[in-house]
Amino acid sequence: MLSPASIVPVILAGGSGTRLWPVSRDSLPKQFQSLHGTNTLYQDTLKRVSDRSLFSAPIVLTHEDFRFFARRQAQDIGIDTTVVLEPTRRDSGPALLAAAMVAQRLAGEGCLVLALAADHVVLDEALFVDACRAAGRAASDGHIVTFGITPTEPSTAYGYIRPGSAAGTSEARKVDAFVEKPDTVTAARYLAEGYLWNSGNFLFPASLLIEEAERFEPAIVAAVREAVELSVEDLGFIRLDAKAFADSPAKSIDYAVMEKTTRAAVVEGKFRWSDIGSWDALRALEPGDAAGNVTHGPVTLLDSTNNYIHTDGPLVATVGVDNLAVVATEDAVLVMPASRSQDVKALVAKLKSDRHNAASEHLKAHRPWGTYQTICRGERFHVKKIVVEPGGRLSLQKHYHRAEHWIVVKGTAEVTLDGRVFEVRENESTYLPLGGVHRLANPGKIPLELIEVQTGSYLGEDDIVRLEDVYNRS
Amino acid sequence: MLSPASIVPVILAGGSGTRLWPVSRDSLPKQFQSLHGTNTLYQDTLKRVSDRSLFSAPIVLTHEDFRFFARRQAQDIGIDTTVVLEPTRRDSGPALLAAAMVAQRLAGEGCLVLALAADHVVLDEALFVDACRAAGRAASDGHIVTFGITPTEPSTAYGYIRPGSAAGTSEARKVDAFVEKPDTVTAARYLAEGYLWNSGNFLFPASLLIEEAERFEPAIVAAVREAVELSVEDLGFIRLDAKAFADSPAKSIDYAVMEKTTRAAVVEGKFRWSDIGSWDALRALEPGDAAGNVTHGPVTLLDSTNNYIHTDGPLVATVGVDNLAVVATEDAVLVMPASRSQDVKALVAKLKSDRHNAASEHLKAHRPWGTYQTICRGERFHVKKIVVEPGGRLSLQKHYHRAEHWIVVKGTAEVTLDGRVFEVRENESTYLPLGGVHRLANPGKIPLELIEVQTGSYLGEDDIVRLEDVYNRS
Repeated sequence: MLSPASIVPVILAGGSGTRLWPVSRDSLPKQFQSLHGTNTLYQDTLKRVSDRSLFSAPIVLTHEDFRFFARRQAQDIGIDTTVVLEPTRRDSGPALLAAAMVAQRLAGEGCLVLALAADHVVLDEALFVDACRAAGRAASDGHIVTFGITPTEPSTAYGYIRPGSAAGTSEARKVDAFVEKPDTVTAARYLAEGYLWNSGNFLFPASLLIEEAERFEPAIVAAVREAVELSVEDLGFIRLDAKAFADSPAKSIDYAVMEKTTRAAVVEGKFRWSDIGSWDALRALEPGDAAGNVTHGPVTLLDSTNNYIHTDGPLVATVGVDNLAVVATEDAVLVMPASRSQDVKALVAKLKSDRHNAASEHLKAHRPWGTYQTICRGERFHVKKIVVEPGGRLSLQKHYHRAEHWIVVKGTAEVTLDGRVFEVRENESTYLPLGGVHRLANPGKIPLELIEVQTGSYLGEDDIVRLEDVYNRS
Repeated sequence: MLSPASIVPVILAGGSGTRLWPVSRDSLPKQFQSLHGTNTLYQDTLKRVSDRSLFSAPIVLTHEDFRFFARRQAQDIGIDTTVVLEPTRRDSGPALLAAAMVAQRLAGEGCLVLALAADHVVLDEALFVDACRAAGRAASDGHIVTFGITPTEPSTAYGYIRPGSAAGTSEARKVDAFVEKPDTVTAARYLAEGYLWNSGNFLFPASLLIEEAERFEPAIVAAVREAVELSVEDLGFIRLDAKAFADSPAKSIDYAVMEKTTRAAVVEGKFRWSDIGSWDALRALEPGDAAGNVTHGPVTLLDSTNNYIHTDGPLVATVGVDNLAVVATEDAVLVMPASRSQDVKALVAKLKSDRHNAASEHLKAHRPWGTYQTICRGERFHVKKIVVEPGGRLSLQKHYHRAEHWIVVKGTAEVTLDGRVFEVRENESTYLPLGGVHRLANPGKIPLELIEVQTGSYLGEDDIVRLEDVYNRS
């Protein structure tokens, strides 16, 4: 039997998905965005495992750059997390092994680990929990369980699993084979023969995964073990040792363990699921209107059918188009036949080589203390909207080439200027002369919003001397 | 013989073209925008008739809403104009008759009038002037001359003219018939039979046009004559009498005069010409790249052919599309097959019925003193960038619900606040409390740029009490 809270969810939130560009970019990838529903995909994933009678508090594995998103978005929905930082990306094998070892530290040697991607959509939460219970039983029986999803169509975007005979006494079955993404004809055959979609989510005893990995990939286990042992805490984050972790070979968990072990089992997930690996996949989650169009945001269509239109702001209008995907953000527009969704990755590579900022960066920049966004730029001036979260403190800093005007439009600012500390309230302003040593903080309970007008001969982000920083940035 | 400067150019600049939406909108139509080259189409038209040995200073006929564009854009290229304001749109018949009467006042009863649309493109200026000379000779011989363009393709977007026998001793020919826009097969036959495109531009003796109109449309002539006689000058603009002008039947010059008179003649224009009545027409003016794409602005194309992409700011990226027109501005995006360009008019009608601001308004609003643009908007604040032209003065005003912060980022502001007048220079700011009676002016020689941060409980444009206004606005 499963004991309560014996399953430790591990959320893998380090991906940098470019396939949903221009909404998902390196600087804020899709798992931290609201692409389906009001919460972010990451928040939905956390909520999916929030039944504390079955799941313990989650561990989040993510990348350095995303650590404050991971913590803040969890806090925003009232969920406590342990955030573990991968110093470098070494694929899912080392990541899951690190998670297993951290889970053992927190929940004991005998714990079960449920490893979930942070950017998948699950539409039937109850069926998902049912599958977790079944997988938990199979894991307790000594299996590394993967979730195989009941296919709803002969998709060529997913890998497949061929289930075999029953695995022990549980509802799970042995894995006969993992197979790669097929062509359409093969996919149809797979469906007929009862194959399942390979979701890439797992449930396993921590100790079993480590044991099996040790057998096939001892170098990975050794490197990861050292990275966990030498890990340090920094502002509450667990930072794996960079040097040790970098020594691990990069390998997916499929190649490192799943395809070699005899302990693999599959539990069928009957819930509707998507890895939303493309705009086409996202569109498939929603019924269209009478003309087959799925739209988000201000859109006007004339004589247009079967389109997917997503806009974060600009009005999108179409005439006489069919089966297009059009995605508009404040600074970039994507237009393609929906069927070409898989090519967005190649497009983003081209955008990067063309050195377009919008390839990787959003207009709004996220910092540990909040966000800023350029709203107007001129020859010798630059206007930003700055939001500081309650308790947020920017670094103590100065600039060599610019003066700044701050106008508070919401909340209360605590301003430090050349050793003096004073408050600036809504509808008040202050002036920071060139060279003044200053700091901005939000001592209040609601977000502080202010407009910053910079003037000067050089206005680059790199004209900043940080004298002190509560977030340990250099 | 033509005497020097005996041709009075009349530029018809009152149109509100929606067929090039989202760039052209009611609030700033295409004639006042740079759609081909660096000058606006209106400026190019003025320059086309700037040889003062042949053409006198131009008269501009436009709508109330565009009066300051018409004057400022002419001043910007050093051309003096007489701007005549049509109180209401009554089609081209009344407009041209009013122009003819104003021309007679300014240049004498015997003057010739060259009536040109402000939003056409002419690629061979010398051939255009040649055609004007030929048309001038035919007009002096007692003809109302229309310009027929040598067709370069069997276009279905233009009406055609069937030229007849020689008109007197000039190079002009009589007009056998004006024919409507044909279908493709008919258009091909027209080309084979030597028809010309009907450009809708004319050259005629002012007195002859009035005389012929009096014969066919006495009610129009009577109404227009009264509107001109009762016209008043307002800040240098000639304002036709609204009541009298409204009494005129609305009729095009073709229906009112050209299709009825025996004095019609046509001069062949061998210059390349376009009325750029659609995005497709604009694209036809430019050679594409090797893949047939014509692009303006930041664009990245992957596996895309024969597209027209125009962006005023956002990055536009496409994958696998062919023969699309994509037009992006800061606040709106249009996507359609290039072949559907003629349907943009219907689209804009739909956008208007959907009550989208972007159907008719641009983000940047133009005022007699300069421009303003919202750059950020929040619950209780609103940030604008304001540009005041040299010599510009906003009205003396106050607001009931908002306070304003002004930060000057370029130039020098003269600020009036509750009777006190002071200067605010670059990198300085000032605060205008709620209820304060204030005025902003630019006393300098370069444009004044400032950032305005409004805060308050109501931030609509209509919270303004104008106490005094140099531009006679209420």
